[in-house]
Amino acid sequence: MPRYALKIEYNGKGFAGWQRQKSHKTIQGEIEASLKKLDPEITSIFGAGRTDAGVHATSQIAHCDLIEKWDNFKLKEALNFHLKPNKISVLDVNIVPDKFHARFSATKRKYLFRLISRRPPLAIEAGLAWHVKYELKLKPMLLARKYFIGKHDFTTFRSSSCQSQSPVKTIESIEIKEIPISHGFEYQFEFTAPSFLQNQVRSLVGTLEKVGSGVLQPRQVKSALEAKDRSFCGPVSPPDGLYLVDVIYPKNPFQCR
Amino acid sequence: MPRYALKIEYNGKGFAGWQRQKSHKTIQGEIEASLKKLDPEITSIFGAGRTDAGVHATSQIAHCDLIEKWDNFKLKEALNFHLKPNKISVLDVNIVPDKFHARFSATKRKYLFRLISRRPPLAIEAGLAWHVKYELKLKPMLLARKYFIGKHDFTTFRSSSCQSQSPVKTIESIEIKEIPISHGFEYQFEFTAPSFLQNQVRSLVGTLEKVGSGVLQPRQVKSALEAKDRSFCGPVSPPDGLYLVDVIYPKNPFQCR
Repeated sequence: MPRYALKIEYNGKGFAGWQRQKSHKTIQGEIEASLKKLDPEITSIFGAGRTDAGVHATSQIAHCDLIEKWDNFKLKEALNFHLKPNKISVLDVNIVPDKFHARFSATKRKYLFRLISRRPPLAIEAGLAWHVKYELKLKPMLLARKYFIGKHDFTTFRSSSCQSQSPVKTIESIEIKEIPISHGFEYQFEFTAPSFLQNQVRSLVGTLEKVGSGVLQPRQVKSALEAKDRSFCGPVSPPDGLYLVDVIYPKNPFQCR
Repeated sequence: MPRYALKIEYNGKGFAGWQRQKSHKTIQGEIEASLKKLDPEITSIFGAGRTDAGVHATSQIAHCDLIEKWDNFKLKEALNFHLKPNKISVLDVNIVPDKFHARFSATKRKYLFRLISRRPPLAIEAGLAWHVKYELKLKPMLLARKYFIGKHDFTTFRSSSCQSQSPVKTIESIEIKEIPISHGFEYQFEFTAPSFLQNQVRSLVGTLEKVGSGVLQPRQVKSALEAKDRSFCGPVSPPDGLYLVDVIYPKNPFQCR
């Protein structure tokens, strides 16, 4: 059975997240339904990141095994045809070695979080960024993020339903950009790590935003992390601003073979 | 009666354009309905550009006369409160001299058109840009746009329902940027002119796209313009990619008084 890697873009709004569910529309569920139209025997696909309800992706990676061999281009076109009118787009398809696993072969994931700070509501970017009405300060957020970089026990910053065996994760980098926009600023947070806990990025952004708005001091973020207690976390940010933007493998699955 | 200038952002999807209509939801209609909640005697507002159904704005300008004097900030907040959940946002409000007229005082308008050329469908940017599946060439489009710059009879490039007395308009500039994106290119067209005819920008972009895709030669655009015949126009582009991005006045209405 030939194995295929898929690169997928989606707007998470209207989906109950990546992972297949019996009674809700999910990204995985819709892609599997489209694959079944090509190959009724297909069982399931595996994604690199199980994004939550409402979270977007510009580059989610998944793999699946098909019975027949397909031309990469034809498979991509057929999937996109069957996925309509869902806001899910298969950007790339490639046949990969059998040992490739979208989730377990991944060595790094990158998430982008878009936060727009301006008084008036968002009309164009509604649903594509987290909107806060007040001003934020960049400098304290830049100070606070440093406490998160490196290997830590992130018990404070993971969902109570997180199924990861260990709360210990290593964050490689957190970049924060402040971009002037009409009537305010956009803040772009980019997180890079081998893997993340459930709700980790949204928990970290929720806490950094409290630092930016002056509710928390950067030092309190350190105490929150050291407390290893979920109640020390700031409110989890809404999913609107979160995008899975890259998944890294030892070998780019869309350039091999 | 104090006069107010409003700066308005909107996502045009789901609206039958700017202009009030009896049986369809329009931007003007929704803003007037919100104003009536503050001031039941208000009659109408006047916009700088009557954008078509589906066309967006990041900076539409309008004016209205109110019975009572309002604090700028309070008026903006009250309007945004009543406009929910429409994707219409009042970005700025200012009291202006009685002689200010959003439409007739404007000396220049700028429109941006976003065109995304890539094979796979748009999931994130769906509705926010025109999507074409094939590749475009920048150089012929850059050559062709030169024929449109300056004072011309734009009969070929206006809607048959355009109510302008004269088809003669002066285009000051047309900038075209080619921006590499994942799996393709985004083309951003920026048009600046004192005023435009109905469907003019979408007609020009529809024709420039035919030049970019190789269907038309740049010289044919010159002949089409000179023909002064609507049948020489390329297909009018969809509204999804069009944004009214700026309206210029002799004095910035949000900085006066």
